[in-house]
Formats: sequence, structure tokens, C-alpha cells
Amino acid sequence: MDSKVTHYYDPAEYRLRSFHDAVSGFLDGTTTPRAYLEECLQVIDSREPVVKAFVHMNIPGARAAADGSTARYRAGNPLSPVDGMPIGIKDLFETRDMPAEMGSPIWKGHQSFRDAAHVHALREAGAVIVGKTVTTELGMAHPGPTTNPFDAERTPGGSSSGSAAAVGACMLPAAIGSQVVGSIIRPAGFCGNIAIKPTFGALNRGGGHSALSQSHLGVHAGSLQDAWAVTHAIHQGAGGDPGQPGLFGNEALASSTRPKKLARLATDGWVETDAATREAFEEVIAWLEAQGVAIMDADSHPAIVAFESAIAGSRKLCHDLCEYELRWPLNVYRDMGPGKLSDHMRARMERAEGMTADGYRECLARRDVVKARLADLESVVDGLVTLSQPGIAPMGLASTGNTVFNAPASVSGGPALSLPLMAVEGMPLGFQLMGFAHADTRVAGIARWMLETY
Amino acid sequence: MDSKVTHYYDPAEYRLRSFHDAVSGFLDGTTTPRAYLEECLQVIDSREPVVKAFVHMNIPGARAAADGSTARYRAGNPLSPVDGMPIGIKDLFETRDMPAEMGSPIWKGHQSFRDAAHVHALREAGAVIVGKTVTTELGMAHPGPTTNPFDAERTPGGSSSGSAAAVGACMLPAAIGSQVVGSIIRPAGFCGNIAIKPTFGALNRGGGHSALSQSHLGVHAGSLQDAWAVTHAIHQGAGGDPGQPGLFGNEALASSTRPKKLARLATDGWVETDAATREAFEEVIAWLEAQGVAIMDADSHPAIVAFESAIAGSRKLCHDLCEYELRWPLNVYRDMGPGKLSDHMRARMERAEGMTADGYRECLARRDVVKARLADLESVVDGLVTLSQPGIAPMGLASTGNTVFNAPASVSGGPALSLPLMAVEGMPLGFQLMGFAHADTRVAGIARWMLETY
Repeated sequence: MDSKVTHYYDPAEYRLRSFHDAVSGFLDGTTTPRAYLEECLQVIDSREPVVKAFVHMNIPGARAAADGSTARYRAGNPLSPVDGMPIGIKDLFETRDMPAEMGSPIWKGHQSFRDAAHVHALREAGAVIVGKTVTTELGMAHPGPTTNPFDAERTPGGSSSGSAAAVGACMLPAAIGSQVVGSIIRPAGFCGNIAIKPTFGALNRGGGHSALSQSHLGVHAGSLQDAWAVTHAIHQGAGGDPGQPGLFGNEALASSTRPKKLARLATDGWVETDAATREAFEEVIAWLEAQGVAIMDADSHPAIVAFESAIAGSRKLCHDLCEYELRWPLNVYRDMGPGKLSDHMRARMERAEGMTADGYRECLARRDVVKARLADLESVVDGLVTLSQPGIAPMGLASTGNTVFNAPASVSGGPALSLPLMAVEGMPLGFQLMGFAHADTRVAGIARWMLETY
Repeated sequence: MDSKVTHYYDPAEYRLRSFHDAVSGFLDGTTTPRAYLEECLQVIDSREPVVKAFVHMNIPGARAAADGSTARYRAGNPLSPVDGMPIGIKDLFETRDMPAEMGSPIWKGHQSFRDAAHVHALREAGAVIVGKTVTTELGMAHPGPTTNPFDAERTPGGSSSGSAAAVGACMLPAAIGSQVVGSIIRPAGFCGNIAIKPTFGALNRGGGHSALSQSHLGVHAGSLQDAWAVTHAIHQGAGGDPGQPGLFGNEALASSTRPKKLARLATDGWVETDAATREAFEEVIAWLEAQGVAIMDADSHPAIVAFESAIAGSRKLCHDLCEYELRWPLNVYRDMGPGKLSDHMRARMERAEGMTADGYRECLARRDVVKARLADLESVVDGLVTLSQPGIAPMGLASTGNTVFNAPASVSGGPALSLPLMAVEGMPLGFQLMGFAHADTRVAGIARWMLETY
């Protein structure tokens, strides 16, 4: 590994980042899920005033759940790999014990009587729901108060801002995110997390503000084991989205697998990427090649050319799709009077009202082409690699950063992971690994190999 | 027309059933939308105590909206063909001015601050939202209190019970329904309404309890013009479901079109159909043949055999799909304690918990086959015909009737209409006309020809 690159991910330094590593202690009685939770709460106590990851917390509820888990481990009978795991829930989703405010004054104080599908599944698997994490306004671009745990002057990214920051700050081993354009993978990159955006539809997003045709539920975590455990537990209890086949894969994380061939994507984002970030990426690429992985690009195979061509302009495509799909409820919210929507949302609403059904259909057709061109690559390469973001988290909290590297995976519907393999100026940077629809375990196995070998 | 068959649909007798016919009076000043509304309210006053179609009404709000519409017609500037139309909204959907109780004690008194997507679209087009209509429990089978407007000892059908009964009783010219298995077309048949279940995804179902992968939003009306006007207005304002291309078709109802060939389906339901209903259906078929329409069946073309084979058992397929998809939120509701779910729902919940992801995937694959076999028929016939129900509305209110004739169109995702062309024992019976996905105007043109010519 080149000295210029910080190997960001260091489990030894970030012990709390892996719940998985603590489980043996729960089983042999040297520690307990309650003690693990208390360590998390101490970190939250010390860091939350600056990081501002949470909108609401239910600490008594979390302690009671952790005590229940402690009893199960003591009896040698934990419910699942997430039994006892403290988890944060993005505030776009309902819980029975805390409001769901959607990052919007319209939903201020809105208290559901039920858990969202994934929250119910996680509780049934023994997880400890600690709090609701900050989201941008309705999961779109207008930011909340959360700061980057590595530099409070910088954005944590969005829209899963609080989940990304809570995991990045070692407040929690895992937290729930959702992505329509770049809301899981980009903040994971900015906050040094491992994140999984599974195949579109793999996890049930019922019970919240997430009806867009590209909304994906996913997970931020400090370890790949925990990220997969949460992903699997959600599917186990709640299935995928209605009409979708859901997540394929077993409870155990896929075996570590060295890929033979990876496609390196020359996406739109490279022109927006600074030199230090390019250099960090090149070092990971050089390392992959040194491990015997063939790095392919548009010169190597026509199917890569075709995919690159299909994903060109996909950030704009995402915005067009979202805006048409957001006409309702944004029109309802706009009609509720001034101050209910941010200026940013009002501007999107105006653009949305200029769109036609035919224009939207063209967008859907373009998205179908991306999906088909990704499928064509499935026999050509083992995965696709690019950045999670065009550079470290930008200064200031007014913008949650650039989604240009995230739109392709969102449009394609294939799984994507962000791996915290790089750093620039002491700030983490994510390496994005993309896979093929419904082959989430294949890409997870490659991610595991990279994390264990790099 | 054979003397044994009552030609049920008689606009002269049911003047209030067609708002469309009243519009010329609004424009020439001989009557007003407010006067039309008052006529509806008189019918509601007289019939509602027995029919019990409504859960909530907002009469002051409706009067204010009708007055606004009256002013627009007076100025020669109505907003759309539904401007001034009194409409009922199925109580599975949110309105800003009335609760959405979902036919369930869990949602009792639940008041949203916003209109569902279609409600917002209808209000923007000038429609007058009169009230919320009774739904079965969470839109499934457990019935509400509504009675059949033609015989209070009989069911109106479900789950769109109140919408069907309100239109059938001439309380309203149109009302909103939704269908997962048979909840639009069957009650339309039982209540003598015209109904449109459009292509899956054609109308935005945002804002309510309707997340299943087969949920269709649709319309009950007393005239085809009104049914189409409402359908079109919803799409115009709210589009289709996210990710779906939405409704194709213009504001004007399709021209009357005599079909050349129709496939008569020998579905599962015929063995459950009584002799009088069969006879009534045969008379319509004989009339079609007398008009020069070729009636084809499985003996006529292998693509019909293939479709019949694909839809065999589709009622069971619907139930399996729904049960898996309903695991959440039914598990949450069950955990809220006794009395929250009906025994029927609890039994479905138990069946649901026995299903696996692989079992669900097999169901999805079977549904895809039905869709493909329907598409194969598009060049073979102009439409498909069958019953809307296996007989007149059954006695008693404990069951909302048999969905066996409805499941095929729900599974296929193609549009279906119920036409009130038949009657037995003075009770209406629906003739079901099914079309091809996204070709809603083609099937509407055939329906128009049948209604105008029969």
C-alpha cells in the first residue's frame, strides 16, 4: 500500500464499529449487549452535541431491548446476528415509539403508531432501536443540522445524513439509510462507513416517506459483517418491496472472493474529481492489478462502452424521474402555505410541473436501457468500480455534496457498496463497488476480499 | 334483445347517474353544479340510512366546492369534464378534511393533513369531494356495514363497498375504488355500475393504504363518460404510480368501436356460476354475434388456450401474493393486541407467516407468465369477455362475494370494465370486458359501442 494513501478502515482503532466482533464476548459472558449499548451511549453523549446525528432517541426503550438481548445471549439463545445490535433509523421511516418528521416542518411531531416494515423486522430479530437519525428535507437535498464526524465544518452528505454520521462517529455500529440518487453511498464515503445499497426492491421500504420508483433501503455500518447482517435480517422479517423478488443470499456473509475482472467506469463524475482523489483511487486500482485482478475499461469490451453510454447523464435522469414522481405530494405541501417547503423544494416543484407524461415515459425507457446494459455486463466482468464521491466531504453544511458517482447504480438498480479504503487530508473517501441486479452476494464477496486483503 | 334479459343500464331512469349529461345545463345556465350536488344530497338523505355507503361526509366543504364550480361554469370557464362532479373517495385513501379509517379499528379517527394523489388531482380539476365511502377491513375481505342498493339483504360486494353502493343508489355519479383481486369490478357488477379498473399502475395510488403489488386505483360511475373523465383527470393531475408509464388516452372518451373479434374466457369461475347468470351472459354473447362480432374461444386459437392455462388458479395466486405482501403491516397490527384484526385477517396472517421468499418468487414468475400470455393475445383479438361475478349479489352481509372472475384481470394487469348489461331476479349483473396493458382507450371504445348499441 502506497504511503500517500491512508488505509482508512481500521477495526482495531474503531472497535465499536463492529458489533459482530463483540458477539463472542456476549456468548462467553465477558460482556453483554447492554454494556455494548452503554458504550454507544457514552460516545453519543460526548459527540452528539457537535455531530447532531439524531432527531429523537428512546434510551429507556433501547436499554430495555438490550437487557432482553442480554438475557437471550445468557441463555445461549440469541435470535439472529443482529440480536442486541444498536441501530439508528433514518427519520423518513415510522417507528411506534418516536416521531417520523421526514426532515420537514410539515411532518414535525408526526407520531406513527406502528413500526415501518424494516424496523419491525429488526426488532423481531432482536435489534436495539436507539433513535431516529437526521434526514434532509423529505429525503431530498435541503440539509439538516448534522455535521461530518471527521470535521464539523463539513457536510456528512445526505440524505441519510444522521445515519452516516452516527456510524462514522462510532456512536452506533449500524444505521438505516435510503437512496434514490446518492443518499446511501455518498454519505458513507464522506463519513468513512461501509454501506450497502442492495439491488432495487431487495428490502421492504413499507412505512415511511419513500414511494419513489428508485427508492432503495440500505445500511450503513462499521463492518461488512454488520452491514450484511442488518440487510439480511430486514429481508428475513419483512421481505422485499411488494412485487420484487427481494434479497437473495444467506444469513452468513458471502465468502471472500478475489474477482478476476472488474470494469473501471469512466463516468460523468471524473471531470468533477480533484487530483488528490484521483490519485487515491489510482492507488487502489494499482493494488487490485497487483493482486492479479484485470481492470477493464471502455477500450476492453464493447459491453462496457455500451454501459458507459447508457449511464451518461444519469444524474439528470434521476432528477427528472424524481421530480415527476414528486409532483404529488409536493403540490399538496406547497398548497399548505409558505414556509412548508424549502426554496430548493419549491424550485424542484416548479420544474416538476413543467414535465409531461411523455417526458416521464422517455425517462423510464432510458432507465430500462441502463438496466439492460448492466445485465449485458454480467458475463463480462465480476463487478464495476468507481468512486463513491468526487472528493472528500465539501466544506459547509449548505450542500450535502455531489451525487454524480451515485446516479449510475441508482438508475441501474444493481447493488452498490461503499468501502472506506481511501483518505485525503485526513478525511475518508469511499471506493464504490457495483454489482449486478439480484447478485448482492457476489458483490459482497468481492467487497469482503478487498476489505480483508487491502 | 331477448325478453328474458333486463337491459339494466337505463340513463333515462337514472338521470343522476350521468354527470356528463348535466354539463350542457351548467353551460347554458338552466342548472348548476350546486343544484346537482343538492340532488345527490337528497338521494343520500333518503337512502343512506339503509345503504350505509359513507363513513364520513363533508357537506359544507362539498357545497363550497360546488359553488366554486358553479361560478366557473357561469364564467364559461370550467376546469375539466369533472368540474363540479360530486365524487366519493374510498376510505383507504387520505383526504385533508376527513379521516381515513381503512375499515379497521386500528385506524379509527386517523386524520391526515393531506389529500391522496388522486384526491388532489380531482380537486384541482374542480371535482366536489362529498365523502369517504365504506371499505372492507384494510381493503381485504372482512365486510363493512354497507348494503346493496337493490336489496338491503344482500352484499354490495367489496372491498370498494361504499363506492359501489353510492353510485348504484344514485347518490353520486362517480366514486373511487381500488382493486387487488376483485374489489372494483365485482361490486360494480353487484350494484349495476359501470367501472374501470385501468391498466396496473395507470393511476397514482399515493396517499393511502394501497402498497400491494397488484393494487389498482379505479372508478365506479353511472356513465362511461363520467368513468373515463374521472380516470383521465386523476392521471392528468397525478400521473400513474411511480415507475409506471401511467394512463394512455385523451380527455375525450374513445370513439365507439365495434370489435371484430372477442375471446370468451372459460375461466375457473364458470363452474361456480348459476344457470340464470349463464343464460343472461349467453344472450349478450348471442347479441354480439348477431352484430357480426366473432366470438373466439380455446378452440379458435392456441394463444387463447395458452392464456386460459396461465390464468387457471389465479384467485389462489392473488391470495398467495397478497398474503406474503401483507406480512407487514399485519404483523404490526396483530402485535397491537386482540380486537385489532378480524378473525379473517388473523387467519390470513397465519397463512402469510408460512410463506417463504422462494414461494413468493414462484408466484411473481407465474404472474409474469399471465402478463406475457395476455400480450400474445393482443394481435389475435380485440378484447376478452367474461362475467364480473358468478351470479347476483349473494344474500347476507358476511361475505362480499366471489372474486373468481376478477382475479385474471388483476393478475394480468390489463384494463377491465364492468358493464351493467344484465340482470337476474331484478338484481344487476356485470358483463366484464378485459383489454390489453396500456391500451385502456381500445377497451373503452369497445365498451362505449356495447353500451350505446346493446
